[in-house]
Amino acid sequence: MVHFPTAPQPYYDLSTGISPYPYPLRMPEVSVLARLPEEEEEADLQAAAAFAYGLTHPDMVVAGAGSQSLIALLPRLLPAQRVCLLGPTYSGHAQAWYLQGVPVQQVTDPSALEHAAEQPGTVCVVCNPNNPDGRLIASEWMHRLADRCAEHGSFLVVDEAFADFEQESIAPLLPHPALGVLRSFGKTYGLPGVRLGFLLANPERAAQARALLGSWSVGSLALAAGRQALRDTAWLHTARAQARAAHTRLTTLLDAAGLPHTGQVSLFTLVLHQLAPALWQHFCTYGLVTRIFAEQPGRLRVGLPASEAAWARLETALQAWTALHAGGAP
Amino acid sequence: MVHFPTAPQPYYDLSTGISPYPYPLRMPEVSVLARLPEEEEEADLQAAAAFAYGLTHPDMVVAGAGSQSLIALLPRLLPAQRVCLLGPTYSGHAQAWYLQGVPVQQVTDPSALEHAAEQPGTVCVVCNPNNPDGRLIASEWMHRLADRCAEHGSFLVVDEAFADFEQESIAPLLPHPALGVLRSFGKTYGLPGVRLGFLLANPERAAQARALLGSWSVGSLALAAGRQALRDTAWLHTARAQARAAHTRLTTLLDAAGLPHTGQVSLFTLVLHQLAPALWQHFCTYGLVTRIFAEQPGRLRVGLPASEAAWARLETALQAWTALHAGGAP
Repeated sequence: MVHFPTAPQPYYDLSTGISPYPYPLRMPEVSVLARLPEEEEEADLQAAAAFAYGLTHPDMVVAGAGSQSLIALLPRLLPAQRVCLLGPTYSGHAQAWYLQGVPVQQVTDPSALEHAAEQPGTVCVVCNPNNPDGRLIASEWMHRLADRCAEHGSFLVVDEAFADFEQESIAPLLPHPALGVLRSFGKTYGLPGVRLGFLLANPERAAQARALLGSWSVGSLALAAGRQALRDTAWLHTARAQARAAHTRLTTLLDAAGLPHTGQVSLFTLVLHQLAPALWQHFCTYGLVTRIFAEQPGRLRVGLPASEAAWARLETALQAWTALHAGGAP
Repeated sequence: MVHFPTAPQPYYDLSTGISPYPYPLRMPEVSVLARLPEEEEEADLQAAAAFAYGLTHPDMVVAGAGSQSLIALLPRLLPAQRVCLLGPTYSGHAQAWYLQGVPVQQVTDPSALEHAAEQPGTVCVVCNPNNPDGRLIASEWMHRLADRCAEHGSFLVVDEAFADFEQESIAPLLPHPALGVLRSFGKTYGLPGVRLGFLLANPERAAQARALLGSWSVGSLALAAGRQALRDTAWLHTARAQARAAHTRLTTLLDAAGLPHTGQVSLFTLVLHQLAPALWQHFCTYGLVTRIFAEQPGRLRVGLPASEAAWARLETALQAWTALHAGGAP
């Protein structure tokens, strides 16, 4: 925001898909940090995650310092001749495989991914729901794709970073031999600074992943946060309802401003407009940070405002945008 | 301790080499956890670490969730034909390379390591000071070894997990082209549950390591802890003096019990005695957990007691040991 010195303070960050409703975490005492995490704490975190993600056993859970750290682990865990991504999607996946020297192909058509799954040694990657476009693929199709991978000696990675709010998950298919699922704690529980995420896989592969991470891959704060929050179903129901209501409020404002949008994810929406870069800049002058994508200039991701002040600022900015562009081409 | 149901409560953990003097951390507000760590916070942590470890520039610092996570990263960062470890030492190093399929040789003689350094494609690993025997190698020899590695196309990794208290570090030799140095935050600052450690390397390699880790490899708590503690030279001086005094107190008790010991590290000492397994069991019955090593049965590592109650328990246990073994063979 240094480039917009006249923007009102404080600025509001709508550039992420992180929930604006942080879990009411009880912070651990400093004394807890004065010892290493204990095995029973780690086992209990795995049990809490298995409960939250619908797994029959905690030995299918690998906890890491944020799902990004587990994305970075995948190229070591999964020997791959090639990777096929259903894109455009979160760039961290392609980056991780690229650094390992594995060729990465991006396809935009799900049927092309089905074809790729028939080549042995392929790792197929699907973000579901997808980021940034919020596309949600039905579990049935994902199940068939996983089975196809198992049949052909390929592997399916499903990044369900935004699945908690949409309740469409392939995780209960585990222990499936050709499936790995990523889940994000920080996005759902609004606590990304904790750094906690999970890889879910069959027990053998999960054990291998834990060995590669080494001991104490998750700190005491993340252990405490996960163990408190992941069993709190009532809180999650409330947060889901809040996010859905906020998403409706957001899309209603965008509709009123004549801005087309897409996506089935509560935590953000994707504005589709040829003036997206100008809209991004317009928002900046109002102290609102949203997200544009260098390679997809007609798209702007807008997250949920966290406060009434932020909502009011967004409404003002959208009204001004409408006034500026009244009668203009969409 | 479940195997020693009659042991007094609480039990005292002397099994680690972690400082018993935790840094007086000001815990961050929960609201800090509700956003992702920001680049300027990460840059400031790197600057604080560069200050603490005597580096001329923060771009040589890689922060990770504990030095174990950086040990696990090394096989991806350093293409190696073989690894030569100066051992016996911390098993995490051999384990990390083994998982990558790289042959690991262990040598006990420093001159054998000098020889190994002359083979291109070798990664030499030295823990200095060493764990568990507390052996400290002079910086001059380490410098020569690093230069030899540079000359022959090999690489030197120095794990300085216990160096903060001994002030013997090779880190200021950076940016050296064939040197990587590991540092541990948790051990020195008595906060291992935070999970924070550092890899120090020349700027190109450090940038590569940060790319492999991916974004946000260190959470908000670790960022706050590192930024608070790593510039607090006065606190570190005091903690060093405390640890040295405690080490003298510990070795005086061991001397009085006729138990030989070795090591130049303040935070622990290594008892050398053929009855080490029996001594470990004896300590357990007193609710004192120490560390034995399956492959080195004549060695027992004892850390510093954290409280006067723990000291009193240790003294009682040692007096009972002396009474039991009076006149016995050493």
